Amino acid sequence: MNRSPWIIGGLVASLALSSVSEPISGFDAAGASAQQALEAKFDALISADEQKAWMEHLTARPHHLGSAFDRENAEYIAGLFRSWGYDTSIETYEVLFPTPKVRELEVIGERTLPAKLEEPTLAADSTSGQHDEQLPTYNAYSIDGDVTAEVVYVNYGVPKDYEELARRGISVKGKIALARYAGSWRGIKPKVAAEHGAIGTLIYSDPADDGYVQGDVYPEGPFRREDGVQRGSVMDMPLYPGDPQTPGRGSTKRAKRVKLKDVETLTKVPVMPISYGDALPILRGLSGPVAPDSFKGGLPVTYHLGPGPVKVHLKLAFNWDVVTLYDVIAKMKGSEYPDQWIMRGNHHDAWVNGAADPISGMVALMSEAKAMGEMARQGWKPKRTIVFAAWDGEEQGLLGSTEWVEDHASELREKAVAYVNTDGNGRGFLRVGGSHTLENMVNEIARDVTDPQTKVSVAERGRAALRLSRDKDAAREALARKNLRIYPLGSGSDYSPFLQHLGIASLNVGYGGENQGGSYHSIYDSFDHFTRFGDPGFAYGVALSQTTGRAVLRFANAEVVPFEFDGLLDNLQTYVDEVVKLADSMREETDVLNRQVEDGVYALALDPTKADKGPVKKGEVPHINFAPLLNAMESLKDAVATVRQVDRRALALSAQEREAVNRLLYTSERLMTLDKGLPRRPWYRHHIYAPGFYTGYGVKTLPGVREAIEERHWQEADEKIADTAGVIRTLAASIQKIGSTLPAGEKL
Amino acid sequence: MNRSPWIIGGLVASLALSSVSEPISGFDAAGASAQQALEAKFDALISADEQKAWMEHLTARPHHLGSAFDRENAEYIAGLFRSWGYDTSIETYEVLFPTPKVRELEVIGERTLPAKLEEPTLAADSTSGQHDEQLPTYNAYSIDGDVTAEVVYVNYGVPKDYEELARRGISVKGKIALARYAGSWRGIKPKVAAEHGAIGTLIYSDPADDGYVQGDVYPEGPFRREDGVQRGSVMDMPLYPGDPQTPGRGSTKRAKRVKLKDVETLTKVPVMPISYGDALPILRGLSGPVAPDSFKGGLPVTYHLGPGPVKVHLKLAFNWDVVTLYDVIAKMKGSEYPDQWIMRGNHHDAWVNGAADPISGMVALMSEAKAMGEMARQGWKPKRTIVFAAWDGEEQGLLGSTEWVEDHASELREKAVAYVNTDGNGRGFLRVGGSHTLENMVNEIARDVTDPQTKVSVAERGRAALRLSRDKDAAREALARKNLRIYPLGSGSDYSPFLQHLGIASLNVGYGGENQGGSYHSIYDSFDHFTRFGDPGFAYGVALSQTTGRAVLRFANAEVVPFEFDGLLDNLQTYVDEVVKLADSMREETDVLNRQVEDGVYALALDPTKADKGPVKKGEVPHINFAPLLNAMESLKDAVATVRQVDRRALALSAQEREAVNRLLYTSERLMTLDKGLPRRPWYRHHIYAPGFYTGYGVKTLPGVREAIEERHWQEADEKIADTAGVIRTLAASIQKIGSTLPAGEKL
Repeated sequence: MNRSPWIIGGLVASLALSSVSEPISGFDAAGASAQQALEAKFDALISADEQKAWMEHLTARPHHLGSAFDRENAEYIAGLFRSWGYDTSIETYEVLFPTPKVRELEVIGERTLPAKLEEPTLAADSTSGQHDEQLPTYNAYSIDGDVTAEVVYVNYGVPKDYEELARRGISVKGKIALARYAGSWRGIKPKVAAEHGAIGTLIYSDPADDGYVQGDVYPEGPFRREDGVQRGSVMDMPLYPGDPQTPGRGSTKRAKRVKLKDVETLTKVPVMPISYGDALPILRGLSGPVAPDSFKGGLPVTYHLGPGPVKVHLKLAFNWDVVTLYDVIAKMKGSEYPDQWIMRGNHHDAWVNGAADPISGMVALMSEAKAMGEMARQGWKPKRTIVFAAWDGEEQGLLGSTEWVEDHASELREKAVAYVNTDGNGRGFLRVGGSHTLENMVNEIARDVTDPQTKVSVAERGRAALRLSRDKDAAREALARKNLRIYPLGSGSDYSPFLQHLGIASLNVGYGGENQGGSYHSIYDSFDHFTRFGDPGFAYGVALSQTTGRAVLRFANAEVVPFEFDGLLDNLQTYVDEVVKLADSMREETDVLNRQVEDGVYALALDPTKADKGPVKKGEVPHINFAPLLNAMESLKDAVATVRQVDRRALALSAQEREAVNRLLYTSERLMTLDKGLPRRPWYRHHIYAPGFYTGYGVKTLPGVREAIEERHWQEADEKIADTAGVIRTLAASIQKIGSTLPAGEKL
Repeated sequence: MNRSPWIIGGLVASLALSSVSEPISGFDAAGASAQQALEAKFDALISADEQKAWMEHLTARPHHLGSAFDRENAEYIAGLFRSWGYDTSIETYEVLFPTPKVRELEVIGERTLPAKLEEPTLAADSTSGQHDEQLPTYNAYSIDGDVTAEVVYVNYGVPKDYEELARRGISVKGKIALARYAGSWRGIKPKVAAEHGAIGTLIYSDPADDGYVQGDVYPEGPFRREDGVQRGSVMDMPLYPGDPQTPGRGSTKRAKRVKLKDVETLTKVPVMPISYGDALPILRGLSGPVAPDSFKGGLPVTYHLGPGPVKVHLKLAFNWDVVTLYDVIAKMKGSEYPDQWIMRGNHHDAWVNGAADPISGMVALMSEAKAMGEMARQGWKPKRTIVFAAWDGEEQGLLGSTEWVEDHASELREKAVAYVNTDGNGRGFLRVGGSHTLENMVNEIARDVTDPQTKVSVAERGRAALRLSRDKDAAREALARKNLRIYPLGSGSDYSPFLQHLGIASLNVGYGGENQGGSYHSIYDSFDHFTRFGDPGFAYGVALSQTTGRAVLRFANAEVVPFEFDGLLDNLQTYVDEVVKLADSMREETDVLNRQVEDGVYALALDPTKADKGPVKKGEVPHINFAPLLNAMESLKDAVATVRQVDRRALALSAQEREAVNRLLYTSERLMTLDKGLPRRPWYRHHIYAPGFYTGYGVKTLPGVREAIEERHWQEADEKIADTAGVIRTLAASIQKIGSTLPAGEKL
């Protein structure tokens, strides 16, 4: 049954034709035509072959922070920027970067076995044998340690996993926690393990999440081998990212440094990542209760929780060196508004050779810079200043971007219009996260970029994927909502200091979803792997350049910067609805749980011969006064109604009035921050988006309110409702100010 | 928060006290007191030690149909029944039972490997070494065959799995289908494979469903080893069970037999079960697309679909023998109504030693028979005749029960009040399926039997478990509904011919849920396994005797047989609601699917480099006229309102009137059948409950209507709505007749 195929057909047709007919926010008709011509020219200058050649060069050797090739790459990139006409500098910072001196792991079971802790050379991967230059498999910012203890298997090692352990009377106190990757950012695992009394943590890649369960392993297929290991930082980034010794300030040579022993973002226990090959004998050696289903992975064993009888001996010692990082900064001065900066960044450092992460994004950025340089050479000038950045030390904890942002904070607060980030790329679907004031702009760009595989717009392909979503509401929305949603940003890449520390509107952009693989943070994230499984012909590298390049070009050239507030209002309303529902559902669940405990339901229903004795009662969830937040949203709604079609209406203003509006538009994100920051982590100032304290990368929207509720800090929930409502009211007042400047709106 | 703990507390208290204070349906106050005293006496006569000793004896050697020990067991059981005072006979039938002559399986891959096809002797299991008497691992009623072909992995081998294969352009035509156990009854797998053109089928036990993923394997734990194999029948039982050559009639020596070549219930292709150890090299040898997530099991491989390149050579030949089966029938004549039969059965044959399946249920039945024999010796007489049955040949396809029921059909139609079945037992929760006219009776019994582990009633323990259900509606119902629901019966045990062929109200009873294990149909279903992991102290064997014994005693002694119609009405209404919703949701899903296909959504959203090309359009789902069914339900509702508290009100009738009511009560199930049976399988006459044509054991309620909708036979749906509505109206009329006989009802 097909009730109205022509409506859909019509929508498809209009999207397919749209790249020549649709307006572009912030430009008048003539300006939009000129911009389209410029973008067509830009598109033609993007070369897949160049991206491939640059990648081959930049991934030829390991290029982690502090390595010789890391510096060489920075200089190579800087040289190219200069050759393309940019005012280029390499800015250096001195940062703490521990590298392994001792890495020992013994499995003490029926037999005592040393773990392998090595990724082997593969004939099919030409750079995999560069062992002399590769960083070994380890977690950076683990403390030194020498511990021997029984093992407890803690699943993903997140708080709810410890609730399951507690139901079974199992504690990690004095034990070594074995956690699997996934389910949270890796740094959360040792943090939560230590909070529960563990004296060490091992993190392994389970094949259910990252290995043969997903598909064929490398080199037959793209997935993680039994000896593949995910390196990575375990710095406590939800507290603050960047150099651990210089929180909140640039780690220049002379910067005041916290003593190593006083640094708060190192782990509390030694931690090391291992392969599933190395994890298997440990899991085989565990007895104790059989793990609950949610703990079961893909290895051919019965997963037990322990503790023991298997023990491990883990010995770690690091060189606690301070090394130099090399950020490449390349500027093209704006002709009309040189003090309005459009920033575009990707990091250049890798854990090892880093083809997918980060070079696939870096080469797209380089294509953009080269094309704009060529257009400038031919006479084009951006109205606003364009700043390209190739960050160093991202992998260790956003070091290069964070130190640079902290170092240049005053200037950035004044000048930054927006920051556009990438961090690798692959084949598949456009995925954009970021500030919702930019959601409409992103959709206009997605409408205008063609998907290389299907030849429809990347927006249309994204909408098709959304229509197949298992989430029925999302699938319905795919037909009903004008714009595709962009996701809110947590952490995990270089946008974090811009967005969350300074309140600079940011986007994080990449293609993916069809470039599956298990090369992440291993020696197999190589040119060979990427050109077989990532984006073989660099067609999506080209699409990425066309996407982020358009963002930069439109920000740089628009008469009215392409911010708007309907997308923000709509998304923010869903977050407010969520936190209200969260409190209600926690209250209901707590009520049910407590009644069940009181009625002895667990005692009757659970198998008395098994370890699981059920949960304990939880504190009651009070009714929370959300009125300040709801009232603030009403103000915002009223304010947003006054600025509909701001991009067109502001075109009619005088240049001076328009500039005042532009400034209010691009500084609107600043108003979502508070200088005092979030509770217990003042570095994070944004009150709409933050990484979760117990998710690490994963975003928490309305973080102060949401985390207070989740953590059952009721008084803090009230305080953060007040703070967040204040933020929203301030924003609403600023939007009202824009509205009062604008001429009467056109009918929508 | 705990809004009203006293309500729950009160409920708990009333349940706990209930075993001495609550009435029993069908008895007046004095009768109920006497019955309670009788049941207390009965309880005291049930001995765990005897059950253990009988099990040890009956499982000492393999005792499959046709074996020497099968006959010895029948004679041993018959001897005991006789010694307890029963009028006992062994009734024999001659049935087709193929056993393997040739079983060969070679895996032809990079190397050619013979499969092991053997379960090894284990020191920890004292009967596991009786290889001379064990049936080898095979599927009974597979045809002979000698096939060599590439393999396709078909997941559970149910129709929707073939839809997934079709999306990926994969056909089993001319191939051998490798299916895993679970997801359907095993006989469905070769049937559906053959429908799709496969020339052979292998069925293996995947460790995700039945092995180390669940827990430790035997003998360390209870679960299936890598060399464990599930034997079993693959006869097309959804067509008809029982001897394949005598459908619908008892397979006595002289019975007319269908020629072997004309038998419809043999498989169409050769089929054999294998272990996951034997399946692993086949799965390793498959290439082709990576299997979708729903196909992935627990073996340490990437699951691929094939076809090939691995091939297998499967050669099977059977001795197509006709063997004698031995049903033991033991009767205790009723003092008042000798022609009203209360039947109680369990099978005695096993695939091998069969401790859990079936002897754990058999010994409970024996305890009941012995106790009643003892009570009779002391002077008690049941009002109605009690018939105990120990069936043979259940494992092959309910042969013993089906042939006996077919042979005695006229007598049973006339005399049978109810049939109470068990088929094994274990530690845990009471689980009862059956006729919903008996739901209230079952709840009264569950109220009166004490759980051995928690010392509350088994009803209370069941309610506690239901409160923890993930199904929130079920959890809420646990607090809101007076009676726990009993589940509707499909097939899979000896109640099937009673219920579905003749319309005799039936119950299927067992404890379980805490006796996990992987011994099913293997040589490890042994006394050693059962007494470690099944029901070590036979406490649940005692509870089972107390449960089914109460059912028999109450049926046998009640003044008014304990049938009632509120439970039927309520459950039937949920089934009617389900089929109405089913049609609506199929219509909506088809509509969405067809729009997506028309709009090219799959072409845009799916990875163009992958095999999955998405589904094809489906035929539209018309609006169906459910009015006849809904109107019939209104009649039933009106009728049921006239017979509330029939068990009390009928006590006031004259003996003759009461007997007329009793007959209408216990023959009510007959009215739910139609002589013409279900479409394409006339043996199945029940129109409320049937095994699914494509589920095998799994029930389909309102089967004619539901399967017509599921299979998109719209005209048949109309016809079966009319038939089913007719059945319900006939039932309503009969209930009205009861109502018109009864004195005015008490206020509820």
